[in-house]
Amino acid sequence: MQELEALFNPKSVAIVGASHHEGKIGHTVVKNIISSGYKGKIYPINPKGGEILGLKVYRSIEEVDNVDIALIVVPAHIAVEIIEDVAKKAKFAIVITSGFSEVGNIEGEKKLVENARKHGMRVLGPNVFGIYSAKAPINATFGPEKIRKGNIAVVSQSGALGIAMIGRVAEENIGLSAIVSIGNKADLTEVEILSYLFKDDLTKVIFLYIEGLENGREFLNIAKKKPKEKSIIVLKAGRSKAGARAVASHTGSLAGSDAIFDAAFRQAGILRAESLEDGLNWVTTIASSPPPKGKNVVIVTNGGGLGVIAADACEKYGLHLFNDMEVLRKTFQDVMPEFGSYKNPIDITGQAGGEEYRQALEKAFSEDSIHAILALYCERGDAELEEIRDAMAEVHKKYGNKPALYTIFGGEGATHIIQSLKKQGIPAFSDVEDAVSALYALYKVHEKKEEEKFEEVEMNEEKIRKIIEEAYKERRHRLLSHEAKEILLSAGLDVPPFYFVKSIEEAIDSANKIGYPVAMKVVSEGIIHKTDVGGVVLNIENEREVAEAYEAIMENCKRNVPKARIRGVEISKMLEKGVETIIGATTDISFGKVVMFGLGGIYVEVMKDVSFRVAPVPKKEIRRMIREIESYPLLEGVRGEKRKDIEGIVDSIYKVGMLVSKFEEISELDINPLIVYEKGVKVVDARMSIKVRK
Amino acid sequence: MQELEALFNPKSVAIVGASHHEGKIGHTVVKNIISSGYKGKIYPINPKGGEILGLKVYRSIEEVDNVDIALIVVPAHIAVEIIEDVAKKAKFAIVITSGFSEVGNIEGEKKLVENARKHGMRVLGPNVFGIYSAKAPINATFGPEKIRKGNIAVVSQSGALGIAMIGRVAEENIGLSAIVSIGNKADLTEVEILSYLFKDDLTKVIFLYIEGLENGREFLNIAKKKPKEKSIIVLKAGRSKAGARAVASHTGSLAGSDAIFDAAFRQAGILRAESLEDGLNWVTTIASSPPPKGKNVVIVTNGGGLGVIAADACEKYGLHLFNDMEVLRKTFQDVMPEFGSYKNPIDITGQAGGEEYRQALEKAFSEDSIHAILALYCERGDAELEEIRDAMAEVHKKYGNKPALYTIFGGEGATHIIQSLKKQGIPAFSDVEDAVSALYALYKVHEKKEEEKFEEVEMNEEKIRKIIEEAYKERRHRLLSHEAKEILLSAGLDVPPFYFVKSIEEAIDSANKIGYPVAMKVVSEGIIHKTDVGGVVLNIENEREVAEAYEAIMENCKRNVPKARIRGVEISKMLEKGVETIIGATTDISFGKVVMFGLGGIYVEVMKDVSFRVAPVPKKEIRRMIREIESYPLLEGVRGEKRKDIEGIVDSIYKVGMLVSKFEEISELDINPLIVYEKGVKVVDARMSIKVRK
Repeated sequence: MQELEALFNPKSVAIVGASHHEGKIGHTVVKNIISSGYKGKIYPINPKGGEILGLKVYRSIEEVDNVDIALIVVPAHIAVEIIEDVAKKAKFAIVITSGFSEVGNIEGEKKLVENARKHGMRVLGPNVFGIYSAKAPINATFGPEKIRKGNIAVVSQSGALGIAMIGRVAEENIGLSAIVSIGNKADLTEVEILSYLFKDDLTKVIFLYIEGLENGREFLNIAKKKPKEKSIIVLKAGRSKAGARAVASHTGSLAGSDAIFDAAFRQAGILRAESLEDGLNWVTTIASSPPPKGKNVVIVTNGGGLGVIAADACEKYGLHLFNDMEVLRKTFQDVMPEFGSYKNPIDITGQAGGEEYRQALEKAFSEDSIHAILALYCERGDAELEEIRDAMAEVHKKYGNKPALYTIFGGEGATHIIQSLKKQGIPAFSDVEDAVSALYALYKVHEKKEEEKFEEVEMNEEKIRKIIEEAYKERRHRLLSHEAKEILLSAGLDVPPFYFVKSIEEAIDSANKIGYPVAMKVVSEGIIHKTDVGGVVLNIENEREVAEAYEAIMENCKRNVPKARIRGVEISKMLEKGVETIIGATTDISFGKVVMFGLGGIYVEVMKDVSFRVAPVPKKEIRRMIREIESYPLLEGVRGEKRKDIEGIVDSIYKVGMLVSKFEEISELDINPLIVYEKGVKVVDARMSIKVRK
Repeated sequence: MQELEALFNPKSVAIVGASHHEGKIGHTVVKNIISSGYKGKIYPINPKGGEILGLKVYRSIEEVDNVDIALIVVPAHIAVEIIEDVAKKAKFAIVITSGFSEVGNIEGEKKLVENARKHGMRVLGPNVFGIYSAKAPINATFGPEKIRKGNIAVVSQSGALGIAMIGRVAEENIGLSAIVSIGNKADLTEVEILSYLFKDDLTKVIFLYIEGLENGREFLNIAKKKPKEKSIIVLKAGRSKAGARAVASHTGSLAGSDAIFDAAFRQAGILRAESLEDGLNWVTTIASSPPPKGKNVVIVTNGGGLGVIAADACEKYGLHLFNDMEVLRKTFQDVMPEFGSYKNPIDITGQAGGEEYRQALEKAFSEDSIHAILALYCERGDAELEEIRDAMAEVHKKYGNKPALYTIFGGEGATHIIQSLKKQGIPAFSDVEDAVSALYALYKVHEKKEEEKFEEVEMNEEKIRKIIEEAYKERRHRLLSHEAKEILLSAGLDVPPFYFVKSIEEAIDSANKIGYPVAMKVVSEGIIHKTDVGGVVLNIENEREVAEAYEAIMENCKRNVPKARIRGVEISKMLEKGVETIIGATTDISFGKVVMFGLGGIYVEVMKDVSFRVAPVPKKEIRRMIREIESYPLLEGVRGEKRKDIEGIVDSIYKVGMLVSKFEEISELDINPLIVYEKGVKVVDARMSIKVRK
């Protein structure tokens, strides 16, 4: 991977298309670079020459020395024309110019990148608003002039949103280490940007806005390498329609769905924000707060109502309200007024002023078994707001040993106080739900991530490969049932005895070997709904019934599907009842192989109760994946039933994940059902498809 | 119901406990009344006499004329002492004083109200911050001095939150028609306040903050009388723990739960906000927007990213994005720049300035098939913000024929623009999700509410009463199975033939009448888990088996539960399989009789998939109630199965609702299961309890 140092800390920059006219992008960019205090060389380029903002203008890129970055602001067709010349001089081109693939000009974009890469130049964009980097420092964007330095990096796929975000973070007093617009991602993508930011000392929190990922797998791999002291918050737009659960009845139809993004982010240790507002609140709080050392949250409030609302929100977000009454009483007894309440939320009553808040907060910060503080204040008629603010700010700064988030509910005065706290780097909110949500995010990003461990699975790879090759040879992309089962068996799954037979004699012989009762079903790539055409017979008890069933199946299928090529019959053990589950695997356009789990029948089809992971999945993660489904209690045993063999499911999903990862050719797979008993799991039926070989 | 006119539009007001010292509540109240421009008489009362803010101070209440309201700001014990004297002079006492039931002083509060009511005076509070009414106008609170007049009424149970809310609504430029603090609700409750506000011309939207309702049924009845041009938004705090679904396995345990509040609000046509922020956003939008004439929402944006986020949010909130490409193209073709997009969200591109916004919005307002507009603007580096604002504001005011909500995403400039739009009464937001949520609320409050229709149900009331009285006579509060069934049968439900028998001969005789197969189970109030003790035999095919079963049941029960009084055996028809559902009824502490519906077995127990309504429930509402459960598709028929008899369920729930409403004594009822077939539903098992008679 190429080092992006020169992109974020360039020693020299050329502006191809610099403009003499104020208000033009080619002018704004030069102005912003200058006023950001950039120390390197600046080469404005314009065929007209002259001067821009006191800088000498060069007539062409040929006239200038080699540069670290070249900003391209000329129209699209010219950009394509000159890119080779630029590439000879620059390490990076930041192509601000739009009019490429986003409007269908795919050819132009392809040429642009090809010509750049020919000479080793990398391209950011096209269709971007530029880059800001606190390291240089350089503001090479056509956005706002002033950008506050800080420890948050913003990476945005959307230009307009990115520019607006610069303004917004300034308004929110959020300091930035970098802001990068990645636009059409024709060359550089979030993958390389992330890998740079991971090594960047200035960056503590990364806020990512993306709409889609073409290289999801690469993204996932790099994201997993995130240093643990850094956090990533992602806002992934484009959920609409894609909602996986709506179409969960068939694994294959879930490709590219939003649920898979959810799963992938979770696996990568990336926290996904539901809204822009949440995302911005979260990054600010994470950037300015220490990690919590335990789960005990304490709410301090002057208004019962706001306290109740906060408590509701804490429950909603799964935060733990500390409720050891003895410790709470001991902690707050010296500062609690008459009519106050020790029950968390701690209500220091409407009488509480600055001094009371100071004391209560001191106590909360000092008590070790309190790990995070939510301090709430309802504005009163009289003006004590500044005292309150000073108490909060002073105590917050004095300790700083645990997360503390502040909510001031009220009018204009409250707004000013919030702004003032924010300016001091203290997380403050006007809405208590926002504060609780931010605290949730803080907990979430600091959850311990265990290392991913994969044990080798013994597979009969040779046999699996042989079956796949056989199918390719016969130009079949849907494996026959017994082939799919054979592969699963070779991958180590528990598949009860089955035989593929071609005559009544073979059938009887096999049935005797398996032991009764047995099930028989037709094997034919032309028959999908086997039961509907009379191709399945269950509960066969003896040799006579085997013979009858064989004949019946043959007759029914020939009559009902005369054109189908009937290959024979699969004969297998009839199994006892158990909990029916489904394990699926499919190929997602962003992330490649993914696995799915759900309970059989209506749970998947009606309740859309499934969970996903990108394959392969370590066992710990599989356990979480299984617990995620709503019907999980059924596996734990309800109504006096015993716990089912959940580890058996874990093992099966694990093996399926390894199988589809090892055999790139397997594009889809469905074990439906996998019957789960108190002890053991059994594959009853399986389908498998292999991808079209080009 | 007493007319509250004198409370909201008082001609005279006394302040009992008026203070000479600035900063004291007794001073602030006088100051606020004066500066609110109150035109009536003001009588400050303080034993010291003198003057306060230029007003003559009276030494006692005896010295003043009769007044409409008396504000009480003296300490609690004095308030109780003097309340009778006050009651002789005033129509209403607003008891600001705290230290009553909220801190356990229930006796004092009781006395306070009793002594007030003795002389016909009504009490608001105690423990309130006062009242503001735009009609008078009067600001008789100790909150902020200046309150903006408008069409929103706020009713708050929490004092601190209420005061802070005055500040907040001012900051949000929300005008108020009234703000009422109801505090401990010792006398006046939200019920009477609502009934006044329904008739108040100034009030369009009511924002209610409550933590609990003791008189839920009354509340519901008054809320249902809401004039259709007014809207109620409620923020009900205290969800935590109460979450119904966590304990849904048994109907009775769900009493007082949050899910019932949800159901009650829905039935009353009240919209429940999840957070304070949402609530405030919603009321502002509803107060300032016309009702939408149809479902078609159009998003106009200058940034693709923000458009996508808005579209995601619309889907989440169930808003319909207009997608008739022909109309959209026709509407926007004259104003669409190169590279713009007609696909909703309409992207007028990053180039769009004030003029482009003006034109696009004009088109959107003019096209009749567009019913609501979400206009989004991402701040750009260059300063076009004021042009954008002017375009938005001018077009908005020019048309005003449909809801239009604005989101400006960006920095400080954006914040100013939003404030400026709000000042002009235009709903504007910094977060696009907030805007979409507010539009959702606007649609929701304007949904047509059909009238509640109840048809009479034919019931054998005499028989029902007789069974209940029989149980009371025997001091039983749990009815026997056959009694419960008898009552349901008498209420018109479909209960298959059953007999209560006391000998083998009777059993055989009954079984022959019913027809085989039959089921038999022990009847004994001492045996709850009948199956566990061998008290149930199913699938009985003939007389011999009846006799055997009878003997086995008697023997098992006597052996296993020797102390139980065995009354006999219930014998009933064995039913064919169908979809098992549960209908329950219970007594909620707030709302009284409520009914519950869910699918049987694990759906209720594991998936907590149930819905509630306050009884009785009109049939249309029952249909919604049934559709609400997640497993509803099972009733519609999945996997090729036919639709089940949903109207049969509707009818059963309806009758259960009527039954428990008519017979106050029935405190709990469970039909589990009610088997539902393609045609018909059957009550299989029932339990019923009657309340303890005092």
